[in-house]
Amino acid sequence: MDEIQQLAANQKELTHAIDSVWVALCAALIFQMEGGFALLEAGFIRSKNSMSIIAKVMIDIMFGGLAFYAIGFAVAYGPSNGWFAFGTGILNGDLGLNLTISNSLFWFIQLGFAIASISIVSGAIAERMKIWAYAVFVLIFCVFIYPLAANWVWNPNGWLAKMGFNDFAGSSAVHAVGGFAALAAAILLGPRQGKYNSDGTANAIPGHNLTLASIGAFLLWFGWFGFNPGSTLGAVGKWEMIGKVAVNTFLASAAGGVSTMAYTMLRYKKIDITMVINGVLAGLVAVTAGCNVVGPNSAIVIGFFAGVFVDICVVLIDKIKIDDPVGAIAVHGVNGFFGTVAVGVFAEEKGLLSSGKFDFLGVQILGVVVLSLFSFIATILIIFVMKKTMGIRIKHREELAGIDAVEFGVEAYTTFE
Amino acid sequence: MDEIQQLAANQKELTHAIDSVWVALCAALIFQMEGGFALLEAGFIRSKNSMSIIAKVMIDIMFGGLAFYAIGFAVAYGPSNGWFAFGTGILNGDLGLNLTISNSLFWFIQLGFAIASISIVSGAIAERMKIWAYAVFVLIFCVFIYPLAANWVWNPNGWLAKMGFNDFAGSSAVHAVGGFAALAAAILLGPRQGKYNSDGTANAIPGHNLTLASIGAFLLWFGWFGFNPGSTLGAVGKWEMIGKVAVNTFLASAAGGVSTMAYTMLRYKKIDITMVINGVLAGLVAVTAGCNVVGPNSAIVIGFFAGVFVDICVVLIDKIKIDDPVGAIAVHGVNGFFGTVAVGVFAEEKGLLSSGKFDFLGVQILGVVVLSLFSFIATILIIFVMKKTMGIRIKHREELAGIDAVEFGVEAYTTFE
Amino acid sequence: MDEIQQLAANQKELTHAIDSVWVALCAALIFQMEGGFALLEAGFIRSKNSMSIIAKVMIDIMFGGLAFYAIGFAVAYGPSNGWFAFGTGILNGDLGLNLTISNSLFWFIQLGFAIASISIVSGAIAERMKIWAYAVFVLIFCVFIYPLAANWVWNPNGWLAKMGFNDFAGSSAVHAVGGFAALAAAILLGPRQGKYNSDGTANAIPGHNLTLASIGAFLLWFGWFGFNPGSTLGAVGKWEMIGKVAVNTFLASAAGGVSTMAYTMLRYKKIDITMVINGVLAGLVAVTAGCNVVGPNSAIVIGFFAGVFVDICVVLIDKIKIDDPVGAIAVHGVNGFFGTVAVGVFAEEKGLLSSGKFDFLGVQILGVVVLSLFSFIATILIIFVMKKTMGIRIKHREELAGIDAVEFGVEAYTTFE
Repeated sequence: MDEIQQLAANQKELTHAIDSVWVALCAALIFQMEGGFALLEAGFIRSKNSMSIIAKVMIDIMFGGLAFYAIGFAVAYGPSNGWFAFGTGILNGDLGLNLTISNSLFWFIQLGFAIASISIVSGAIAERMKIWAYAVFVLIFCVFIYPLAANWVWNPNGWLAKMGFNDFAGSSAVHAVGGFAALAAAILLGPRQGKYNSDGTANAIPGHNLTLASIGAFLLWFGWFGFNPGSTLGAVGKWEMIGKVAVNTFLASAAGGVSTMAYTMLRYKKIDITMVINGVLAGLVAVTAGCNVVGPNSAIVIGFFAGVFVDICVVLIDKIKIDDPVGAIAVHGVNGFFGTVAVGVFAEEKGLLSSGKFDFLGVQILGVVVLSLFSFIATILIIFVMKKTMGIRIKHREELAGIDAVEFGVEAYTTFE
Repeated sequence: MDEIQQLAANQKELTHAIDSVWVALCAALIFQMEGGFALLEAGFIRSKNSMSIIAKVMIDIMFGGLAFYAIGFAVAYGPSNGWFAFGTGILNGDLGLNLTISNSLFWFIQLGFAIASISIVSGAIAERMKIWAYAVFVLIFCVFIYPLAANWVWNPNGWLAKMGFNDFAGSSAVHAVGGFAALAAAILLGPRQGKYNSDGTANAIPGHNLTLASIGAFLLWFGWFGFNPGSTLGAVGKWEMIGKVAVNTFLASAAGGVSTMAYTMLRYKKIDITMVINGVLAGLVAVTAGCNVVGPNSAIVIGFFAGVFVDICVVLIDKIKIDDPVGAIAVHGVNGFFGTVAVGVFAEEKGLLSSGKFDFLGVQILGVVVLSLFSFIATILIIFVMKKTMGIRIKHREELAGIDAVEFGVEAYTTFE
Repeated sequence: MDEIQQLAANQKELTHAIDSVWVALCAALIFQMEGGFALLEAGFIRSKNSMSIIAKVMIDIMFGGLAFYAIGFAVAYGPSNGWFAFGTGILNGDLGLNLTISNSLFWFIQLGFAIASISIVSGAIAERMKIWAYAVFVLIFCVFIYPLAANWVWNPNGWLAKMGFNDFAGSSAVHAVGGFAALAAAILLGPRQGKYNSDGTANAIPGHNLTLASIGAFLLWFGWFGFNPGSTLGAVGKWEMIGKVAVNTFLASAAGGVSTMAYTMLRYKKIDITMVINGVLAGLVAVTAGCNVVGPNSAIVIGFFAGVFVDICVVLIDKIKIDDPVGAIAVHGVNGFFGTVAVGVFAEEKGLLSSGKFDFLGVQILGVVVLSLFSFIATILIIFVMKKTMGIRIKHREELAGIDAVEFGVEAYTTFE
């Protein structure tokens, strides 16, 4: 019998090891999405600000990561009353999540989600926000805004978690929260110089390096196969879900790209390749909430609509003169919102289409509305205070010269021989 | 006894989990090779068409992936009579492959092979094929050409599988099939304007961004360590093979690069660095068929010859006025062919050198000849019909202006500050 | 009882499989760091030499890898008398390391360390070293210098291993050894033309493409999550350490970037973004030795100091007119040294701060001093002989024209439409 107990103990150890391998590598894939954000955003803006946006994504990682280590993680995953939690650093003891991985490793994968969320904001504020002001916002976002959202959605005591809210890998908690913070920041910053004319028309400001943006897109696409499947937080007992999630993730991305190709072709007689990139990302964002509970055909439908929504919303947002240089609000905000609602419609068991009941859909809508509003309002308040005190926007002449020259004293590209 | 049965059941679950972790992550690595294809091809051509080639690789992924989901996978892995199979979507039930992973996850890794194969074609048709015509070909290729090849080679009932054909990760099924389709497409499209002079001489059209091409090469190299080792489709019972395959994959790539360095140095008095990149890829392609059954020294020999073959064949193909802007035919077609034959020579047990028998070598030659011819002829027929109906080539003035401007209305690089 | 023995045997097989999955994927992540080195270095130098540096990193991989296969690995991990070992190729039999993975797979992950070490040198000799001379040095380094260092540190019989030297993933064996070889090579090569004026002042030679350098930095950052956690060489029984190592690796990198931001802001009134990249890398290098034995707060402290040290040392090295175009000596040499010593201070059990004893710190200092001196002196001797015989530096006019044009006959960027 001792031998059997030993075997059982060994099996437990093997489970820990398998799940740790899975999560550690998915977390690395998620981490490398930061390179994707940085390069996508840099390519989509003008060269004179391209190093500044890369610096901002590095701030997302560095400042955001340290803040999430020191405080944010404990706000999200500490003992919670349903709305907020207290504690510091990487918590010891049982987090109540039935983890088979160490708290440290859980922190490492959660880090990826936190810094992805704030990296969404870095795109919308491109080409005009002061770097140190941005760093302050990153700290606040990663200590307070994102962690509270994660608390409600993923803490075992979170009020949305208890209501059965399904946001598997974070269409709401990561993408809508990041996207609506981006909206708030873009509103308070105002548009870039020269973006809108006095007669109300808008000027396109093309990205300086679309092959660079494409590199970013491919890195993000790659990383999403850690982001979504990795949200299983383990493989033992969940290996079938890994395949399901990966397939749904792929299908939604492909459908998002295809619908954008078709939409821009029909609407403008030309394929808009930068929008196709955004369409792929929109599909990815939208399927992130429900990739564990929808079927593959539903994933295609979700991705298809996401691609169309991103096309329409990029134009709409531009029309109301909110200047979002990389389309972050339409990709992450709009489709994070849509994707969360879509789970309520398409989920295989509880969704409206299969169950005919509105209960679950209602929870999904409630959750994403509250999360989006919370992030939007909190960001408005914080950045408003920052605007009135330390200032958030670079000077007019600095904007003309470019942030790279002014704040960093460099040029991204030199022709020095 | 119940405890023992429980332990045995748990072990089965652990096996599923381990193998799923392995395949899911290798599949992600294979998927990111698409970024490698896109950037390599974009860097090797002119900037005026660079976004169009990235769009084409995105079509490989999106259209190809959806087609492989809806039909192609079932053609490859459905119940087969040895030549073709029927079914739709991701099949339920046992595929007869003794899989320890879910069919969904198996689909996800197979997806990577399918879209890699079509991405080979995208390079050879660069700078002159209409985008929607290309999209149509992608659909046909991923519904029919690649899946039939996969059926013959990897379906448990495939006629080549039953003959003992060894194409471990697809030198034939992926690379020769893609490479010979690329040859057919390049022939029917004809060369780019200005490529060949009326006196029969050729003009070099240098790539616009070789650092970009290098990024692509590094991503492909990286992904190959998912492509080949991941073809074990599991780690339990195969962990020793994983190491063997990884080592062979590396050694062949290194030898391919070295032999190309030496060859171009001796032949042209200068190292041709773009050819060295192709030499590395040639080594990778060539060892892909046999990395499970050859020894490491044989892998070096295979890679060495692959590097020389690619050098010679790029020149030859150019001499007969087939315009392949990125060298896809020489890298994937020629060395996919060579690599498949090389297994028959170098395989540790059944190869000509160790067994002294020609049987296995004969099967290898038969297989790769049939697969290459099938892909070549099918593509000739399909693209010929497309040429006569919808048209496959952009207009003369569009080609001069560049596809990016004409079909997408963008420039990859702007100097708009 | 037979069933129990079978279950126990199966468990052993599962352990092999888990550990092989872990190591194979970490090794792939480490391998892709080569792309990171190549692109970082290319972006930090002038475009006229950018393909030559990529070629040199490919030589690191190809020549270095083949040399490490044929001889180097056996020098490092063969039966050792404490100082050197003999054998050829990938050794059969038990290496005495209690490996649960195959020797082939162990070779594959060790390959990544070997070629990372030599790739450090490629940065410091940029823009002026003959390519074939460099190839010769790569062979010698990967046959002899790196393997001897690895022998002393990681061979079970190595003299430093026996003293309890803790260099978990190679701050000393990989980074200090590479960095001090880089120092030696840079000294013997002399500075680039035009780098230093006759009055002793230095000219900044800005990198031609900082977005390209950023891609490289992100790839390196990503790969470090294979480099450090993968050095566990397995997950079973070590899954808790994986999380610890990943967290420490991240925290040190973030702290290194933050301290560099602060330092350059305070010192120069501008954030130096290229130095921030080096600060992140410095933090990564420094924590590599001790990430298994220091706590997370110590990792932050280590990273913080690493960021400051790299800032100071880049300037110092420039002041004494050693021309290191990419800062490799300060990043890898200085911080590899510092990180190794820091383990002696901060280690949770044996470190000076927790134990109050100097013994372990003494071993750490002894080890890194010997390893750095060994690498420095060996490189001085080898390159001195090469300089007097085959020559190491390109001709004056070649340097003005650029190595790409002279040795490769290409330009990285063309405007040929």
